[in-house]
Amino acid sequence: MGRIVCAGLGPGDPDLLSVKADRAVRRARHLAYFRKAGRPGQARRIVDGLVAPGTTEYAMEYPVTTELPFDGPDYRRLLASFYDHWADRLAALAETRDVVVLCEGDPFFYGSFMHLHLRLQGRAEIEVIPGIPGMAGCWTATGVPVTWGDDVLTVLAGTMAETDLSRHMAAADALVVMKVGRNLAKIRRALAAAGRLDRAWLVVRGTMPGERVARLAEAEIEDCPYFATVVVHGDGRRPELPE
Amino acid sequence: MGRIVCAGLGPGDPDLLSVKADRAVRRARHLAYFRKAGRPGQARRIVDGLVAPGTTEYAMEYPVTTELPFDGPDYRRLLASFYDHWADRLAALAETRDVVVLCEGDPFFYGSFMHLHLRLQGRAEIEVIPGIPGMAGCWTATGVPVTWGDDVLTVLAGTMAETDLSRHMAAADALVVMKVGRNLAKIRRALAAAGRLDRAWLVVRGTMPGERVARLAEAEIEDCPYFATVVVHGDGRRPELPE
Repeated sequence: MGRIVCAGLGPGDPDLLSVKADRAVRRARHLAYFRKAGRPGQARRIVDGLVAPGTTEYAMEYPVTTELPFDGPDYRRLLASFYDHWADRLAALAETRDVVVLCEGDPFFYGSFMHLHLRLQGRAEIEVIPGIPGMAGCWTATGVPVTWGDDVLTVLAGTMAETDLSRHMAAADALVVMKVGRNLAKIRRALAAAGRLDRAWLVVRGTMPGERVARLAEAEIEDCPYFATVVVHGDGRRPELPE
Repeated sequence: MGRIVCAGLGPGDPDLLSVKADRAVRRARHLAYFRKAGRPGQARRIVDGLVAPGTTEYAMEYPVTTELPFDGPDYRRLLASFYDHWADRLAALAETRDVVVLCEGDPFFYGSFMHLHLRLQGRAEIEVIPGIPGMAGCWTATGVPVTWGDDVLTVLAGTMAETDLSRHMAAADALVVMKVGRNLAKIRRALAAAGRLDRAWLVVRGTMPGERVARLAEAEIEDCPYFATVVVHGDGRRPELPE
């Protein structure tokens, strides 16, 4: 009887895997990961130097990424059967061996693994190794602490409606907006409406080669990647500052 | 010319340090960490098995923790001079050697190191190694993903006023409340007022020996630790579920 171990990989730098995830990946003989069809896959790339020769790999290729609207029935149906298929395959594999599933960032924080996790309940022993969320790599890259004292941090998805984004942006002290990509112009407008644009930073490829950190108001980004992140630092209670 | 390296230690399990932080701690010859006076200190305890013999240690003992109101002038003055003192000492040390400063969780996410970081600007070369935030260890301990799809996550400090807590709790999908301790009863009332108490979990000592996970409504906790965490999972868009 094997196990399914989901290893959180952190923000992108292979040195930012946890000791436990690093060990799990190095010891893996069966390794699964999500990727866009025809691409090497970001998760797989992070562990390039860690995978032992002879490891059997299972590339779980999304049947669709941004070609269909994510709230439509076709998208839902395609993704549901994709996750069903891979849950079945992983459950079958785990009957006789251990399988390590890679997950960028932290698996339980907006991670794709949760869709398998949901379907594998009661069918296999599962361990989840937490990881450094991508956003922590991004705010560290800005060189400034993201939250102080009693700051309220709110994390938003760039895919949300502009008015919803704006309302949450106005209510929080510190902000992270994930899933930026083609939503960048909308996010910028929402930040401006909430009076937060002048404090916003855009981080692309945080902790990875080619990392870019820029003030969002000044950033000229064409083809902004989906996994870019917007960070607005809090400025809360700082008990240590002289009055 | 040395450097100051702040190593994020993650949620508490020594195996959850990043490979990079693990390496920095093992190689450290000068090691500094915060702790409450007279206590071994949680940060130092996490790295018990990693510190090389002969390492010089600098215990930065808080002059005050919960004895004074945190928004009063005495508290502010005491902490300010404490941070001033240690910033001076670390800057002096870093003139001739490397110093590793330990920080639980992620240093730029409500971490005490930022008070030194602010004072060390321009005085020493500083590197910050991100860590798995304590909250990620806690939501992983619940065994359920914290955010799905477009869920909004809001992170709150239990030290906030009850009405502020409640307002933010009602507006978010997923919630984390940190700094619980003696604020537990207030947090419980705020969650109830926001209609979120039935979904709330209390995690004590997440990822550490003695870890406890309980539904908050049913939890009977006396002397709840300051570093306990409340988690309310989101239940957002799940494109993969059959309609």
